[in-house]
Amino acid sequence: MSKKGIFEQFFGTVAPQEYTDLALEAHEALRGRAGVEISGVRVTEDRRGEIAITWVEIFSEEGERLMGKTRGNYITLEAPSLRHRNRQLQEDLGQVLTQNLVQLLHLRPDSNVFVVGLGNWKATPDALGPRVVNGVLVTRHLKGHIPLDLSGGLRSVAALAPGVLGLTGIETSEIIRAVVDDVQPDLVIAIDALAARNIERIATSIQLADSGIHPGSGVGNERIGLTQKTLGVPVVAIGVPTVVHAITIATNTIDILLDKLRGQASLLQIIEEMEAPDKRGLINEILSPLVGDLVVTPKEIDVLIDDMSRLIAGSLNAALHPNIDQGEIFRYIN
Amino acid sequence: MSKKGIFEQFFGTVAPQEYTDLALEAHEALRGRAGVEISGVRVTEDRRGEIAITWVEIFSEEGERLMGKTRGNYITLEAPSLRHRNRQLQEDLGQVLTQNLVQLLHLRPDSNVFVVGLGNWKATPDALGPRVVNGVLVTRHLKGHIPLDLSGGLRSVAALAPGVLGLTGIETSEIIRAVVDDVQPDLVIAIDALAARNIERIATSIQLADSGIHPGSGVGNERIGLTQKTLGVPVVAIGVPTVVHAITIATNTIDILLDKLRGQASLLQIIEEMEAPDKRGLINEILSPLVGDLVVTPKEIDVLIDDMSRLIAGSLNAALHPNIDQGEIFRYIN
Amino acid sequence: MSKKGIFEQFFGTVAPQEYTDLALEAHEALRGRAGVEISGVRVTEDRRGEIAITWVEIFSEEGERLMGKTRGNYITLEAPSLRHRNRQLQEDLGQVLTQNLVQLLHLRPDSNVFVVGLGNWKATPDALGPRVVNGVLVTRHLKGHIPLDLSGGLRSVAALAPGVLGLTGIETSEIIRAVVDDVQPDLVIAIDALAARNIERIATSIQLADSGIHPGSGVGNERIGLTQKTLGVPVVAIGVPTVVHAITIATNTIDILLDKLRGQASLLQIIEEMEAPDKRGLINEILSPLVGDLVVTPKEIDVLIDDMSRLIAGSLNAALHPNIDQGEIFRYIN
Amino acid sequence: MSKKGIFEQFFGTVAPQEYTDLALEAHEALRGRAGVEISGVRVTEDRRGEIAITWVEIFSEEGERLMGKTRGNYITLEAPSLRHRNRQLQEDLGQVLTQNLVQLLHLRPDSNVFVVGLGNWKATPDALGPRVVNGVLVTRHLKGHIPLDLSGGLRSVAALAPGVLGLTGIETSEIIRAVVDDVQPDLVIAIDALAARNIERIATSIQLADSGIHPGSGVGNERIGLTQKTLGVPVVAIGVPTVVHAITIATNTIDILLDKLRGQASLLQIIEEMEAPDKRGLINEILSPLVGDLVVTPKEIDVLIDDMSRLIAGSLNAALHPNIDQGEIFRYIN
Repeated sequence: MSKKGIFEQFFGTVAPQEYTDLALEAHEALRGRAGVEISGVRVTEDRRGEIAITWVEIFSEEGERLMGKTRGNYITLEAPSLRHRNRQLQEDLGQVLTQNLVQLLHLRPDSNVFVVGLGNWKATPDALGPRVVNGVLVTRHLKGHIPLDLSGGLRSVAALAPGVLGLTGIETSEIIRAVVDDVQPDLVIAIDALAARNIERIATSIQLADSGIHPGSGVGNERIGLTQKTLGVPVVAIGVPTVVHAITIATNTIDILLDKLRGQASLLQIIEEMEAPDKRGLINEILSPLVGDLVVTPKEIDVLIDDMSRLIAGSLNAALHPNIDQGEIFRYIN
Repeated sequence: MSKKGIFEQFFGTVAPQEYTDLALEAHEALRGRAGVEISGVRVTEDRRGEIAITWVEIFSEEGERLMGKTRGNYITLEAPSLRHRNRQLQEDLGQVLTQNLVQLLHLRPDSNVFVVGLGNWKATPDALGPRVVNGVLVTRHLKGHIPLDLSGGLRSVAALAPGVLGLTGIETSEIIRAVVDDVQPDLVIAIDALAARNIERIATSIQLADSGIHPGSGVGNERIGLTQKTLGVPVVAIGVPTVVHAITIATNTIDILLDKLRGQASLLQIIEEMEAPDKRGLINEILSPLVGDLVVTPKEIDVLIDDMSRLIAGSLNAALHPNIDQGEIFRYIN
Repeated sequence: MSKKGIFEQFFGTVAPQEYTDLALEAHEALRGRAGVEISGVRVTEDRRGEIAITWVEIFSEEGERLMGKTRGNYITLEAPSLRHRNRQLQEDLGQVLTQNLVQLLHLRPDSNVFVVGLGNWKATPDALGPRVVNGVLVTRHLKGHIPLDLSGGLRSVAALAPGVLGLTGIETSEIIRAVVDDVQPDLVIAIDALAARNIERIATSIQLADSGIHPGSGVGNERIGLTQKTLGVPVVAIGVPTVVHAITIATNTIDILLDKLRGQASLLQIIEEMEAPDKRGLINEILSPLVGDLVVTPKEIDVLIDDMSRLIAGSLNAALHPNIDQGEIFRYIN
Repeated sequence: MSKKGIFEQFFGTVAPQEYTDLALEAHEALRGRAGVEISGVRVTEDRRGEIAITWVEIFSEEGERLMGKTRGNYITLEAPSLRHRNRQLQEDLGQVLTQNLVQLLHLRPDSNVFVVGLGNWKATPDALGPRVVNGVLVTRHLKGHIPLDLSGGLRSVAALAPGVLGLTGIETSEIIRAVVDDVQPDLVIAIDALAARNIERIATSIQLADSGIHPGSGVGNERIGLTQKTLGVPVVAIGVPTVVHAITIATNTIDILLDKLRGQASLLQIIEEMEAPDKRGLINEILSPLVGDLVVTPKEIDVLIDDMSRLIAGSLNAALHPNIDQGEIFRYIN
């Protein structure tokens, strides 16, 4: 039997903001409803201790359409206990992240990498990108200033966190493209805060994607695309869910409540007898107080994002400079 | 006709977290349901331009019981357009706040005041208190160091933002009581971030109360009382709603949905026929994914709290030192 | 009689780091020594209450060579009492700054302006530029989103604080040039922290210059040029001295001490009899413990820079959007 | 032969601000001049890789008088390469610090510890104390909330960073004493930023002292005592030099210059022939432009203090809870 969302089933529409940046959640929702494999999507699951690893590959046009995401590989690492700031788990996740980055980045020894931190450092849930950039080992300017045996193993890394449209007046993608044209990197790595549907994933999951950043994703509303098409070089995205939209809480609540009640034939009948305009009015009336930009976060989001930023920066440094003793590099920095 | 909450009406209970720190909202909820005046509570409304001023006085034991708040005066200033960071409105609100503070503080010329910033500076929605303290003009140590004609009009003000239990390991009220015993102020002013029920009030309202801070209020869970009874001196509280609990969103959603459907006699019947345990199970199932500590805030909460902190600190400075040119004082500070 | 620096007089050389970013100080040093007008330099002085205004114009090649600065206008506003955070003086200085900016910027109603904050936000004395950008009213993205009567008087302003070479791996001037090529502004305004020779000027002076930013200036060592020549559009620089190099303290001390002693004929003789290598050795021995990157600042530099950043941002906003009620604009921001 | 300071030799006085908080430097200065052992002071030196460990014990009244410090043990750890942010060295220093803390703290398994962060978080060079407190594992409130086998090995730790007199209006020692009276710890550990004489020691040295904090020490001027005598419990101080006073640079410069010139008999004569008032006038004239509160720091002091704060907090956590897996504890925090 179909497990179409109750909300959708009754009202014939998906709440438009019931959006998730995680391919994993998009797939969960689809498979939940269809109960079958999704055409054009391949999913592999793995586990390393407390860390669940899900590899979602979208490989056909139908897969793209169904999932609402561009084709490519989406790796999600999940470690729910991270919420408790378990340090051992942080280290384990760092290692798993490094391994998966190495696999996804396809680096040559002489690759030039440009790390971009998206988001707004003045809004905590959106500050992940800038904070990761803050911890990234920047080396592009060191060539020629450090011993050869050291620089031999050192990849050239530049980094920038340009801020958001509201801070600069310039589309972030414009700034990035201008700098990419100038710096000519071989690869862009873009870090971004994401919106999830499941609150349990806030600050406990990481998504890697080799398809770049797409318009409309991210915690900010205004993100526009950073992809191989727009920048001319491959773009790998690293994202962490930091918010659930308040409206997702509301639609979930409605869904669950209707689910509870729908066993009752008479209720089903009541709602089915409602006229379409009445139904739409009902949705609007329920959701309208939950105005647009509200987000749900844990109160301790500041420290959780700090932890995550440090973890991702450390893993990036390890993945980008595998042959280098990091203490050694620090002698030439600052 | 009674306008008892639909949720409550069906399930015979109020969702326990449907809590608000605002006397205004507690009164709205009560009056909404009863449709009549609340015994032991007197409410006066006023308006100054875009700013709505509501004065709630709780004056009897029954008023205390019904409202779930200690007797005293609760003044709420509301200015919804503050969300757009309107500067003129910020200045107007600052003036109205100063006037209301002067009325509530009952200062003598030689009053010694101790300003306490409650909350956690590492969690943005809870950082209001520490940020206000940051902007308060501290003068207690200046006596004897500044010209007589200046110090004549200067009140003695001390200030402390001790942090929360999780940061210090010590109950905040213990720290405050120890310092109050030592400093012997005539009045304590406590600044705190609050939880509201209505998301429109986040960062757009200010509540003043002459009844102090009571256990369980505030954004943090662990607040315990700061009152004339516990400290031995009057305590005036200044609070700003910075969050709505996620669970409030969910219960509101349920309430509205049931309200929409309850015209249907058959639905009413269905739910009424449910056994009590079934009902409790239903509530739990709906709300369980919305685990305890999640809060709803605007994404730009950091700047909104900055604005509010500056506004409150400025109004406090004006109310505490009315005869002093503030530029003049700054010569003796730092 | 010549008033050549004593240090120079004895040792035949200027201490290489005895550098200042202020045209005013370069001129003071020259005139001090020569006791006459400097060829190719015109200096006008004015005063507005406590604020001293000095207008230094360098107009010939010889002036450039003598002053060690590119030709152009350098306006310095000095208000020593700012150190005491006098608010009235802050406001007065804000107004004088606005007037001088208006004079120097030569804006047309439809000018597109790009504000650049130079410096490192992780090093307080170098953080002025990023903090000013933080307070600048950015409007470039608002065109088309706000009412015509409002946008009619609104200039297009974009802003960026890209960080320093050590943070990005990319020369700051490269990033700026790439974005300027893309955004095509009519004017660049660059904000930077400066080094002074006189500690009294730290955080109490502002220099405006229509000659741009030149290599080697600024608190950071690595600054390279941002000028009409390199960017293709006029560049106005706004700078505030935030440090004195430790080595300036040492050379000043030597200068003063020798000055005290030189009345004594015998001392003069002693030093004159020293061999040149001995003299150089003496300098090195005295200055070597004062290794390169040390700077002198007031301990409260953080708050002083905050004050200055707010003041400059406010004046910039007033100069760039003279016909606009700033509270009104805020409705369309964020 | 006596190696009395040249400055002192000529002018018969020590520059009053030629002050250091490091017992090591006080001893260097004394021994340098006397060329002999200092009565009442025992010095032991050790080395662990790149880390120099100096143990200065002051054990008699004469030792106190000569050193200008209270009797007790002063351990200084020095690692000059820390300036380059060498991570391996940071880890090594962390271990050496932990070992020395264990030796100095004399903890019983059930000791209650109160960690106090002195200094001003708004002035970077003075922010060490508050930042260390920020990283300290606070456990006093966990008793009863965590499993017995875990809490068995857990010491009770409380922490507070009250701010400075200018921020609170209350003497910091008053606040600490009030809280100590309430919390009744067995030991106070006070963290503070120090002034050194040698710029090489900024952010590269740590001093431990079992004699507490004494009036006039620290980066702020106003520190007053925190000792066993004032608090009633032992006080161990942990300090890091973060500044050299600008005046120290100037007096050092004078000292070195005079040293260079004093071989010349005639110069000696000149100065000796000066009248005492002339000499004092000379000093004042030289030092007056270097007004009181200026300090010398590396520009990158912000990151250096961050590094040091993390290092000290980590070592404190390891020393206070040796039997505990720190990841495990984090489950119960926040």
